[in-house]
Amino acid sequence: MKAEIISIADEILIGQIVNTNATFISKLLNDFGISCEYIHTIKDARSDIVCTISLALNRSDLVIVTGGLGPTNDDLTKLALCDYFNDSLIENKEVLFDIVSFFKSKGRGEISQLNKEQALVPSKAKIFRNSIGTAPGLYFNNHNHLIALPGVPYEMKYLLNNFLLSFKQEFKLPYILHKTVFVRNIPESQLANMLFDWEKNLDAKLKLAYLPKPGLVRLRLSCSGYDKDELNYLVSKELIKLKELVVFENEEVDLFKKIHDFFNNNNYSLSVAESCSGGAISSKITSFAGSSSYFKGAIIAYNNEIKESFLDINHKLIEELTSVSKEVAQKMSKNIAQKFNSDFSISTTGYAGPSAGDVKNPLGTVFISINTAENNIVSKYLFSGDRELIITQVRNKAFEMLYEEIKKHK
Amino acid sequence: MKAEIISIADEILIGQIVNTNATFISKLLNDFGISCEYIHTIKDARSDIVCTISLALNRSDLVIVTGGLGPTNDDLTKLALCDYFNDSLIENKEVLFDIVSFFKSKGRGEISQLNKEQALVPSKAKIFRNSIGTAPGLYFNNHNHLIALPGVPYEMKYLLNNFLLSFKQEFKLPYILHKTVFVRNIPESQLANMLFDWEKNLDAKLKLAYLPKPGLVRLRLSCSGYDKDELNYLVSKELIKLKELVVFENEEVDLFKKIHDFFNNNNYSLSVAESCSGGAISSKITSFAGSSSYFKGAIIAYNNEIKESFLDINHKLIEELTSVSKEVAQKMSKNIAQKFNSDFSISTTGYAGPSAGDVKNPLGTVFISINTAENNIVSKYLFSGDRELIITQVRNKAFEMLYEEIKKHK
Repeated sequence: MKAEIISIADEILIGQIVNTNATFISKLLNDFGISCEYIHTIKDARSDIVCTISLALNRSDLVIVTGGLGPTNDDLTKLALCDYFNDSLIENKEVLFDIVSFFKSKGRGEISQLNKEQALVPSKAKIFRNSIGTAPGLYFNNHNHLIALPGVPYEMKYLLNNFLLSFKQEFKLPYILHKTVFVRNIPESQLANMLFDWEKNLDAKLKLAYLPKPGLVRLRLSCSGYDKDELNYLVSKELIKLKELVVFENEEVDLFKKIHDFFNNNNYSLSVAESCSGGAISSKITSFAGSSSYFKGAIIAYNNEIKESFLDINHKLIEELTSVSKEVAQKMSKNIAQKFNSDFSISTTGYAGPSAGDVKNPLGTVFISINTAENNIVSKYLFSGDRELIITQVRNKAFEMLYEEIKKHK
Repeated sequence: MKAEIISIADEILIGQIVNTNATFISKLLNDFGISCEYIHTIKDARSDIVCTISLALNRSDLVIVTGGLGPTNDDLTKLALCDYFNDSLIENKEVLFDIVSFFKSKGRGEISQLNKEQALVPSKAKIFRNSIGTAPGLYFNNHNHLIALPGVPYEMKYLLNNFLLSFKQEFKLPYILHKTVFVRNIPESQLANMLFDWEKNLDAKLKLAYLPKPGLVRLRLSCSGYDKDELNYLVSKELIKLKELVVFENEEVDLFKKIHDFFNNNNYSLSVAESCSGGAISSKITSFAGSSSYFKGAIIAYNNEIKESFLDINHKLIEELTSVSKEVAQKMSKNIAQKFNSDFSISTTGYAGPSAGDVKNPLGTVFISINTAENNIVSKYLFSGDRELIITQVRNKAFEMLYEEIKKHK
């Protein structure tokens, strides 16, 4: 089953915000066995909405529209839906009840005419009721399927999930499998040469993609079908052949999720001493609900004074070796573990740019260290790209290193 | 001038990554006076690329395509461009020279056949040379304009900037003005009622959008034209009328940029004590190049032990008031400033969810405190939404509060 997403959002078109709604939706569609083929971001303009809906419904089975369902004049989705489906708006009693209840729960009393008008919905639409906002989901089943959802992320997520659960009961949806592995330090073109025959002889059900990143190339095999075991078999058969040709590693799609689960299911604690990553590691850890049960905290030591006074790094050590050195990274991870009394710890120190580097270590040089009860390991990396990209790579690499150590404790 | 963006990226369609490239491009287009009307994300499929290019070039002046320019079999953009423009590939000497130089600079020696093939470009395209990667930008000027760029973000950014600078010299581009203000604690529908007449009588050149967020509604006025002063006058005239109707605040679009500039241009330093924001504030600060000159660092105290031992919060105080309290927030900001010897400091403590809250303070309760040489202020907030949304609101609010204090020092 093929799907398209239509995001109605001027604020994305002027670059004010990123389209994270579309990412959430396409991921969820994939999880439900529905393949997302197009994502459109369009203006809050009635004719643009109608044209794009028409284009999408003509070629795809399911169209998901977000945005433009609010009570104000720039919210035009309902009118555009009436244009397209040759429909008109009628008051829906259930929706009106939900709106009144929602306002009551917020202690707002009397509702305004504009809010009452949110209970006007296209007569041909099936309603998905919204208990956490005022705009319901609007579902049209007209040989193809269209659902319109509010653009507010948590309302959209809640309604989409309800919709897909009911949709799944009606339709037999396949299983979509993506398997990503990565190969280090071989340029994309050279790798493609090495894999020429393997790629040519891939099972026809499989699609291969090369995704280059600084320092590595990810290879993604994708397939879909109703027999999950057969898909897994297909992919593993090809990976066995691939193993003969090149050294690769499995990409832990949810590497951090695995780390989080490990700490949550065991009685271990974690702390961080960040220099060049500047909070990116802590911020990722604490983005997970439940991290407070194992994450003790961090010291972000963004200058040498702080490294000396709060991470007990010897002044002379920094003078001799600079703070971007193996020894300083190791002391940082060791000392934060001791101070915060944690079983595992991570430290980072390096040059994220754009200026700097020193005589020995150019821009992009980073040392990452992991400390455990048994080990104090450290690795040196040379990352490329801009500041943002370097910080992201440091964060991801730190989690990879931590995961390697965690595996020994499983 | 109207533009469209076409992102060729399977990894966005399966929800593996967010389309940050499109955000960057649409923002930059706006800054150059070009209005972005559509963003398409499509598969790496030759016919889809041709169809979408055709659709886009038929209705827009400028089309920006990203992705699919690599050396492997799943890179189909050049072939699709040849299909559409009825063109064929020829070897470009300059591009070949750039590829050989690029590989030399990376110490890779001989280049492979596949890399040589990257020097094959559509004969009708003008080339934008790429010194930081292997794929050049490809520009077609055929009464409308199309440029194809690699999908790797830092290569794309570099080439797009070069392209738009040269484009700007050829065309007289207008000025696009967006002004966003926000109104607190009035529901969107009620606000729209209050502004009914104002909105109806807005100058025809202005477009108004309502952008609701938990706790506030942003109002955005947009217009474009060649006389910058006239646009500014138009907008300020309407804002004066708006002031009679409702209390609003100016959205500092680049609030953090202003904070960064303040610290960079003055001799003040900054430190942070984060609890519920878990590194989000530090991470934002350190995402700016140059922050190391004023940001001393942070203590992320994700449990009470750490608050007691490293931020010197009295155990009894936490026992009596819990750590989510005005007093604890104030002590946190005061103590981090003392310990890290910084002129300004921020602290956060609260319940980001999903579980928790206590008898007095429900989920979403957050105290934020700012410490300066003169002041130690604290505010209590009740944020709604999921964990991610609450953390984002805490971060933004902390920067707003810091900015209020900074203004007194200007």
